[in-house]
Amino acid sequence: MYTLYGMSDSGNCYKPQLALEQLGIAYRWVEVRDTRTPEFLAKNANGKVPLLELEDGSFLAESNAILWYLAEDTELAPAGRLGRACALQWMFFEQYSHEPYVAVARSIVRHTPVGSPRRAELPRLRERGHQALGVMEGHLAREPYFVGGAYSIADIALFAYTHCAEDGGIELAPYPAIRAWLRRVHAQPGFVPMR
Amino acid sequence: MYTLYGMSDSGNCYKPQLALEQLGIAYRWVEVRDTRTPEFLAKNANGKVPLLELEDGSFLAESNAILWYLAEDTELAPAGRLGRACALQWMFFEQYSHEPYVAVARSIVRHTPVGSPRRAELPRLRERGHQALGVMEGHLAREPYFVGGAYSIADIALFAYTHCAEDGGIELAPYPAIRAWLRRVHAQPGFVPMR
Repeated sequence: MYTLYGMSDSGNCYKPQLALEQLGIAYRWVEVRDTRTPEFLAKNANGKVPLLELEDGSFLAESNAILWYLAEDTELAPAGRLGRACALQWMFFEQYSHEPYVAVARSIVRHTPVGSPRRAELPRLRERGHQALGVMEGHLAREPYFVGGAYSIADIALFAYTHCAEDGGIELAPYPAIRAWLRRVHAQPGFVPMR
Repeated sequence: MYTLYGMSDSGNCYKPQLALEQLGIAYRWVEVRDTRTPEFLAKNANGKVPLLELEDGSFLAESNAILWYLAEDTELAPAGRLGRACALQWMFFEQYSHEPYVAVARSIVRHTPVGSPRRAELPRLRERGHQALGVMEGHLAREPYFVGGAYSIADIALFAYTHCAEDGGIELAPYPAIRAWLRRVHAQPGFVPMR
């Protein structure tokens, strides 16, 4: 059985959890409080969750790489050579142009006190978050999902922090196509909400 | 024939260029000066290079997604389900934990004047860059390449900005395993240096 090391509050950790649930794969969840302990760094030298432990004891890190591993040859995998590359295009977009703004704004709002100097970063994070949402809105105004007209791991990757963007003060009201897509994801078989 | 839109000075643009050269695939290079023009945004709404135009006129963005597309079913693709996921693990590591520090430090040093306020970011960027290099060093002390003992697109992704990390003031002297790996990459058939 797989073991998934994660933090319940993390959208990155929610991604593989949602895929495992939707694929009906049994797994054990281990809540991690500190990723910089010697014990955890021996599992993932980069000191991050989520981390998937396979049955043979090997480890796989990076939320979107775990999604790829879990989805291969399932209905959550994008089809075709260009479809696979397009899914990765959106998943790299998520990690480079979306998560560092949308997730970090949420983390600062939820985990720093009102007077924290980190809150000075919020206007820039929100501006860049809106840029990412604008790119998504343009795509979703034409297409129901991110790749090939079907729900896939690219949608899971982008759903994880988009659905809770308002936690970080990034309003979704200006994005009707994104809001309709969030509803379509919610309606997928096996959907579970973030813990 | 493929068209690759890029900026010669960019490690992200060097990645697909190196893969195309090593795979012996003909392509046309188009130097891009401004990625925020209406003309370019019509090609890539996220306004970034590299961007690959396929023969059918469709576009693929994100350097590591382009690498994946080009390498599929070639000797540059990692083998096996876990090998593919491990390659993606390192490629997401590159975009999230390496490039935002190593590449950005280099960009600030090369493209901002000595008194620029952006230079205040350099100590933190270099510290985080060294963290990423430390993770790579630990792996390369045990393995010749990033995945499965063979040169692959995971190596190309990490070579792009590691080989020029010193441009940003991130010294490679403390990393003998990385320096040996850089020499192994240089010795690969079809290797071309960054422009």
